[in-house]
Amino acid sequence: MIKVGVYGASGRVGKLLLEDLKSTPDMSLSCVYVRGTLDFSIDPSVLVTSDLKSFLSASDIIIDFSLPDACEALLEQATKTPKPLVIGTTGLNTHQLNLLKDASQIMPILYATNMSLGVALLNKLVYQASAALEGFDIEIVEMHHKHKKDAPSGTALTLSESAANGRGLNIEDVRVSGRDGNIGERSKDEISVMALRGGDIVGRHTVGFYNDGEFIELNHTATSRSTFSKGAIRAGKWLSDKEAGLYSISDCLEL
Amino acid sequence: MIKVGVYGASGRVGKLLLEDLKSTPDMSLSCVYVRGTLDFSIDPSVLVTSDLKSFLSASDIIIDFSLPDACEALLEQATKTPKPLVIGTTGLNTHQLNLLKDASQIMPILYATNMSLGVALLNKLVYQASAALEGFDIEIVEMHHKHKKDAPSGTALTLSESAANGRGLNIEDVRVSGRDGNIGERSKDEISVMALRGGDIVGRHTVGFYNDGEFIELNHTATSRSTFSKGAIRAGKWLSDKEAGLYSISDCLEL
Amino acid sequence: MIKVGVYGASGRVGKLLLEDLKSTPDMSLSCVYVRGTLDFSIDPSVLVTSDLKSFLSASDIIIDFSLPDACEALLEQATKTPKPLVIGTTGLNTHQLNLLKDASQIMPILYATNMSLGVALLNKLVYQASAALEGFDIEIVEMHHKHKKDAPSGTALTLSESAANGRGLNIEDVRVSGRDGNIGERSKDEISVMALRGGDIVGRHTVGFYNDGEFIELNHTATSRSTFSKGAIRAGKWLSDKEAGLYSISDCLEL
Amino acid sequence: MIKVGVYGASGRVGKLLLEDLKSTPDMSLSCVYVRGTLDFSIDPSVLVTSDLKSFLSASDIIIDFSLPDACEALLEQATKTPKPLVIGTTGLNTHQLNLLKDASQIMPILYATNMSLGVALLNKLVYQASAALEGFDIEIVEMHHKHKKDAPSGTALTLSESAANGRGLNIEDVRVSGRDGNIGERSKDEISVMALRGGDIVGRHTVGFYNDGEFIELNHTATSRSTFSKGAIRAGKWLSDKEAGLYSISDCLEL
Repeated sequence: MIKVGVYGASGRVGKLLLEDLKSTPDMSLSCVYVRGTLDFSIDPSVLVTSDLKSFLSASDIIIDFSLPDACEALLEQATKTPKPLVIGTTGLNTHQLNLLKDASQIMPILYATNMSLGVALLNKLVYQASAALEGFDIEIVEMHHKHKKDAPSGTALTLSESAANGRGLNIEDVRVSGRDGNIGERSKDEISVMALRGGDIVGRHTVGFYNDGEFIELNHTATSRSTFSKGAIRAGKWLSDKEAGLYSISDCLEL
Repeated sequence: MIKVGVYGASGRVGKLLLEDLKSTPDMSLSCVYVRGTLDFSIDPSVLVTSDLKSFLSASDIIIDFSLPDACEALLEQATKTPKPLVIGTTGLNTHQLNLLKDASQIMPILYATNMSLGVALLNKLVYQASAALEGFDIEIVEMHHKHKKDAPSGTALTLSESAANGRGLNIEDVRVSGRDGNIGERSKDEISVMALRGGDIVGRHTVGFYNDGEFIELNHTATSRSTFSKGAIRAGKWLSDKEAGLYSISDCLEL
Repeated sequence: MIKVGVYGASGRVGKLLLEDLKSTPDMSLSCVYVRGTLDFSIDPSVLVTSDLKSFLSASDIIIDFSLPDACEALLEQATKTPKPLVIGTTGLNTHQLNLLKDASQIMPILYATNMSLGVALLNKLVYQASAALEGFDIEIVEMHHKHKKDAPSGTALTLSESAANGRGLNIEDVRVSGRDGNIGERSKDEISVMALRGGDIVGRHTVGFYNDGEFIELNHTATSRSTFSKGAIRAGKWLSDKEAGLYSISDCLEL
Repeated sequence: MIKVGVYGASGRVGKLLLEDLKSTPDMSLSCVYVRGTLDFSIDPSVLVTSDLKSFLSASDIIIDFSLPDACEALLEQATKTPKPLVIGTTGLNTHQLNLLKDASQIMPILYATNMSLGVALLNKLVYQASAALEGFDIEIVEMHHKHKKDAPSGTALTLSESAANGRGLNIEDVRVSGRDGNIGERSKDEISVMALRGGDIVGRHTVGFYNDGEFIELNHTATSRSTFSKGAIRAGKWLSDKEAGLYSISDCLEL
């Protein structure tokens, strides 16, 4: 039985993790980290703590869906109490990403801005299509619920990197996030990443490749957030017996 | 037999007008306006002229798919030689739009940024949906070929106005054309109009209405430019016996 | 406070009704009808009964999401104990539909195969588009989760009727549900209603209108079943003070 | 300069071949086969013949977009006068397919129901997705213009084979072409291939993979028939120096 510590337990995905772990064979919730008071009910056998060291010690693996600063604190403590870490927190800055890379030299870390199987596959297909469809124009559209605060989504950025890599381009040089006015003809290499917001859309991403005479559009749609929690649990199981190193969701899925 | 003068005959839609008029009952091409030399072949019975007054005099109605400055010159001359005018030129500035309104007091003018039946209907449906689906978030995406120089398309702007009008909003106050960075939650009233560019897409517009639990997406796709030339010819036939006034494509379609 | 009786409380939408009524102002759950033993927990103030007469007597209005035979039993008892009825059960046969019409002469009944605001609006838009886009070919595609047992969905059938009515056609004469082999050219009037099944799709319907040069596609997507329960609750509130008669969701929405 | 013979020159794609060859470097139209009288104008340097042997002798390679019986006659003569053959004719029966395989032992033959680069890539992506997304339900929708006489399209059938092969299934055992009535829950392995018809749609294919929580949809859309003629010309150039054998469009594209 793999003991799982959940970090960010009161968040949207965190709550689903608590629920989904109940029905996961060979894994059980051992510990949640909570700053302040607990705002949800939990089985009395689970350790509830606001001490990071105790939190890490009580678990075989950690799953983190928190915020960038909280994730940073977790990574700092983990260098002293290493455990396999599944990191699903988005919006990490350069300092935090470097911390994550350093930490992965002493423990296995799987870092993914999207834990779903479908998005991992889509990234692979987008890379291939981008390489094969030389000369096709690439355009990306993502849509999320009206409460999402950042744009474009981490997943859309990862997809745009896959597309750019398939052409040997640096996404930072070619990314466009809006078009307005007399902008002239589309340049050959630009890749737009357009962010739509509205309703309760969990997550929808479309990568299109357009040429004279034909186009291809590759779409992924998440229909419930449980696709993220279940993906993180599957990733945690896979990561639990790995050596130190930085892993991606593609490694875990063996795509 | 209605005699048609084509203004902007060497443009994409202009060329289709010359072709489509050949097979239109009760209408015939009488005259084309050409600045400089003719770069296409034409039936010898057709008057080719670079004199605006002769051009207007030789026609029962005029169909214009040119550029803003050329359209302005046409409107100025037409106040002296009035004829029913079908104006399909996009990108007119405020001065040119005022000129058009003034001219419509002495001749019938049908002005439309998109001559297709489907887009006219879509505008009507969008207005209704916007009014009925109070509280739904509105997002618009348009896509055109890689050579298009302005963004968003005139059609997308017209659709966004229909959507805003359905809510009693002024589109200029609420239009968004891109999203990037930590932009915070979506505001209730904003309407994004996102422009995609690529391949040889003739024109694709989607207006979406998003709420918790459900969404509606209304799409129009043009599969060939002949939908614009045929729409303009139909509009010209309708306009030929109308009184002075400013008409829209909806009037012509009696939607 | 309007007292609501829920019929079909252990079904997918039934469970959501119990949940959503907790947070609905001016309405409260008064009674559930249960054949056999209760398989879910419920507030002790709610009457749980397997006697239809008691069930009807204990409520100001009834919301029904059950199965055709159960709905038939409800309608029969209601003729003796009339109450405003919101009927969301799908798959009623001709006899049951006639029973429903008869019952509506002595009590107000709102009958809808889909309680969502968006679908009600879509039906209206489809009727208009079908009438305006004379000569356009009409094709309908619906998609639902892999557990759905009937095809096409009640909502798709209703949409296909709206489309046929817009042309003065009888849907039974023109509906097609599959194409395979050397079937020849499409006939002018046929309307296909194609049913896709897979995953956990709550409900997706697209009605398309296709012509030479352009097409329009009108889509509705339900992202969670709560759109049906919330719609039924809203309908119940509206129906509670109406006179005897047969109402549709469009009446309630005053579209 | 590669001399090209066009077989089926008066068909939709045939006419485009004549046009596109004019602007193709290193290749030129040498011969068209015509039964009866020529119904289009052609450069006087091109041999027009109704004798199959002369037709084959006058060309370095042949491109065929004809009908099954005509294709059969071509294959029979080609066994006596072998030339590299690009076969784009669809709807071949088992006898004709066997003839084609036999002929490919003495000359190089590239046979494809769709010559576009995008569709060739899509087939590859669909195979991968089908294999990786174990347990996802697969549904395919294709749409073509109202004049198409067979359903589903040859391209859709090829895509459904790719999908079935990715799972080790035989498409003939699992293909569904319509759903109507009380059909019960979707079976795990079935793959629907639904055919829509309307307007002037050149060709649109979507392969979807649906699971609880997420789905992926891979789409290809042809925006003009020139994508088929240009693909066939590119295939002919590639095939001109190959050894005897049966090739697919994927071989040519080196995907």
